[in-house]
Amino acid sequence: MPRELFTVRTPPEALRILLEALGPSEPRREAVETTDALDRVLAEDLHAANDLPDFPRSTMDGYAVRAADTFGAGEGLPAYLEEVGEVLMGRSADVHVGRGQCARIATGGMLPPGADAVIMVEQTQEAGGSTVEVLRPVAPGENLVQVGEDVRAGNLVLTRGHRLRPQDLGGLLALGITQVQVARRLTVGIISGGDEVVAPDQEPGPGQIRDVNSYTLAALVTRAGHRPWLVGVVPDLFERLEAAAREALPRCDVLILSAGSSVSQRDMTADVITGLGKPGVLVHGVSLRPGKPTILAVAANKPVFGLPGNPVSCMVTFDLFVSPTLAHLVSASTPPRQVVTARLERNVASTTGREDYVQVRLERSADGGLVAIPVFGKSNLIYSLIRADGMVKVPLDRGGISAGETVDVVLF
Amino acid sequence: MPRELFTVRTPPEALRILLEALGPSEPRREAVETTDALDRVLAEDLHAANDLPDFPRSTMDGYAVRAADTFGAGEGLPAYLEEVGEVLMGRSADVHVGRGQCARIATGGMLPPGADAVIMVEQTQEAGGSTVEVLRPVAPGENLVQVGEDVRAGNLVLTRGHRLRPQDLGGLLALGITQVQVARRLTVGIISGGDEVVAPDQEPGPGQIRDVNSYTLAALVTRAGHRPWLVGVVPDLFERLEAAAREALPRCDVLILSAGSSVSQRDMTADVITGLGKPGVLVHGVSLRPGKPTILAVAANKPVFGLPGNPVSCMVTFDLFVSPTLAHLVSASTPPRQVVTARLERNVASTTGREDYVQVRLERSADGGLVAIPVFGKSNLIYSLIRADGMVKVPLDRGGISAGETVDVVLF
Repeated sequence: MPRELFTVRTPPEALRILLEALGPSEPRREAVETTDALDRVLAEDLHAANDLPDFPRSTMDGYAVRAADTFGAGEGLPAYLEEVGEVLMGRSADVHVGRGQCARIATGGMLPPGADAVIMVEQTQEAGGSTVEVLRPVAPGENLVQVGEDVRAGNLVLTRGHRLRPQDLGGLLALGITQVQVARRLTVGIISGGDEVVAPDQEPGPGQIRDVNSYTLAALVTRAGHRPWLVGVVPDLFERLEAAAREALPRCDVLILSAGSSVSQRDMTADVITGLGKPGVLVHGVSLRPGKPTILAVAANKPVFGLPGNPVSCMVTFDLFVSPTLAHLVSASTPPRQVVTARLERNVASTTGREDYVQVRLERSADGGLVAIPVFGKSNLIYSLIRADGMVKVPLDRGGISAGETVDVVLF
Repeated sequence: MPRELFTVRTPPEALRILLEALGPSEPRREAVETTDALDRVLAEDLHAANDLPDFPRSTMDGYAVRAADTFGAGEGLPAYLEEVGEVLMGRSADVHVGRGQCARIATGGMLPPGADAVIMVEQTQEAGGSTVEVLRPVAPGENLVQVGEDVRAGNLVLTRGHRLRPQDLGGLLALGITQVQVARRLTVGIISGGDEVVAPDQEPGPGQIRDVNSYTLAALVTRAGHRPWLVGVVPDLFERLEAAAREALPRCDVLILSAGSSVSQRDMTADVITGLGKPGVLVHGVSLRPGKPTILAVAANKPVFGLPGNPVSCMVTFDLFVSPTLAHLVSASTPPRQVVTARLERNVASTTGREDYVQVRLERSADGGLVAIPVFGKSNLIYSLIRADGMVKVPLDRGGISAGETVDVVLF
């Protein structure tokens, strides 16, 4: 019986065991220009140094007024105000609005001293000379953004672990924060094992196949915001695999061994990982399909993964174990995931006590909703992954999911 | 009355008018290494040059057999086979399996000539010498991946317009496709207008604010897979804005003018765009909130956008108009979007005949589902965008959405 079957863990247990062994993480940081920080993970809490806006701004084209002067105004009984000047954009408002007075102002302009509201131009009428008729009352503060209404000086605006989105960059730059501390990208070493595996630019001989997993894994690492390092394809010899792993581990932050799919290859991977250092293999076998023979380990305080050799398992286990571990190491709240909701098109069977991941294609149904159509295929077929749009999880405590049920589809 | 209010279009109409004026697109292509092609858009259909796998592969550790030799076998009445050799990984199977014979094979190994199935090692027993007891029958083809079962030679594997995912790269490399033709990234020029706008590294004077939209837009362009080009901040002078736009247009594929929010700034933007060439402004005003004063135009066969100056409108209109236009220009099927389903926490009011986009925060409810909590804030506040996780659309034909309804939240 293969060793991995002795203590099978549920996927959440397995991940918890790994993350607990790694302990709390203190990511290494680096300073980057805010303009280059898209999708990077903040390594510091950021506070506003000043109010935003730091002057009261009009949100309408119209007239800056004293609200009290407009009380009771209406179409039948307009208020008459004297226009005493204009606020220029991007300038200090150098006109003072006294009682019975108003000043022209455009959207974004600075409220002049004396005024406490803006009346929209559509609610006024020029009455000849410098007189403006006001046809509606405004309340104090109306049509204004107040000082600090967007952010107050001292406010915590973004927290450590946050992944920076386009609007976050805009918001930081609005506050003059032009440089930020972010978690350094992790280097993820990828070793592909197997006597049958050749590089993609080589013509496979009889019984050989081209390397698929290394490149899929590398792209998954890139998409997670980190740096893949393809160590290379290593033949199925303990000494060769061990040498490659020993040499790679000090030079990366995370190591993935993507071994072949046979029991002997898997056992060899486990032995190699055990030899890398303490505590070594923590989980060997997960109640998961596909992906059961997954190895989770820690050596030299670094996570080491032995992922199953077939492409579908490789992708499922990356998503379940590697991706959250990478997020943990940089203290990011959650890995980015795309999820859509769909109606399952047909029954999917599973076994209670095991998490199943079923590949699905998505189609629009007549009512505009999404339908998830299972793509059945052996998990050693790469093209079943390509024909699919995402995966549906059958939870541990379910024996299957019935046609018509609403499911979450994790897109890939 | 501002000119934009004369012919207001619905958002779908507005986009259709723009895309029709652009006509069918023939993206410029470039060749890239498949390993560097993550998230790029294919500019060619790709076919398999050979079968995958191109030899029958075992999916189990066990013995290659003639299925007929195992018919009727059981625990009580095993079939006895003679082990005549072993298939080595990555080698041609040089052993022949005759009647009553078997050969050791590991997962991924090549089925030897003569054999037509594999029996799992768990369903056999060594009986001394070279004799193997088979305790269960197998059907022909069992525990095998057949030649071409993953992909057949000549099959269309990926189509033009497809955005390449990690598994696609793996699948292409498995077929030896190491280079692909992809659509060239588009250069998107971004001009920011406004006398009140200063660069983020400058200290704003009285009445001034730092540029927010240029950098948010640049990051949105990057995220869409294209190349932003920040032309710069231009003051509110027709001649200056016109000169900047005229100079930028020939040097980019798409031009965005992110003008100020006042009517005079918007009208100036429209006039500048009109002067860039035929057909000029196609849409000026969309039944949309926020984002009504959007300008969609074509000049020199290139899309030109006049986006509203406030940050929330800017982001909504990028998503509704710029993003699908970029996808159209590179013939990509759809821009990638992240959507989750949630229950709306409170009533949201709108007006029939107008599409509203409401910013929401997401929280997990006690039952594990997501709750969308509207973040009410003026659309000129950048931090309301930062506090939100996504947007909910109130469709054209709805006067609002009630608390408790299920809504799609487009994450940003």
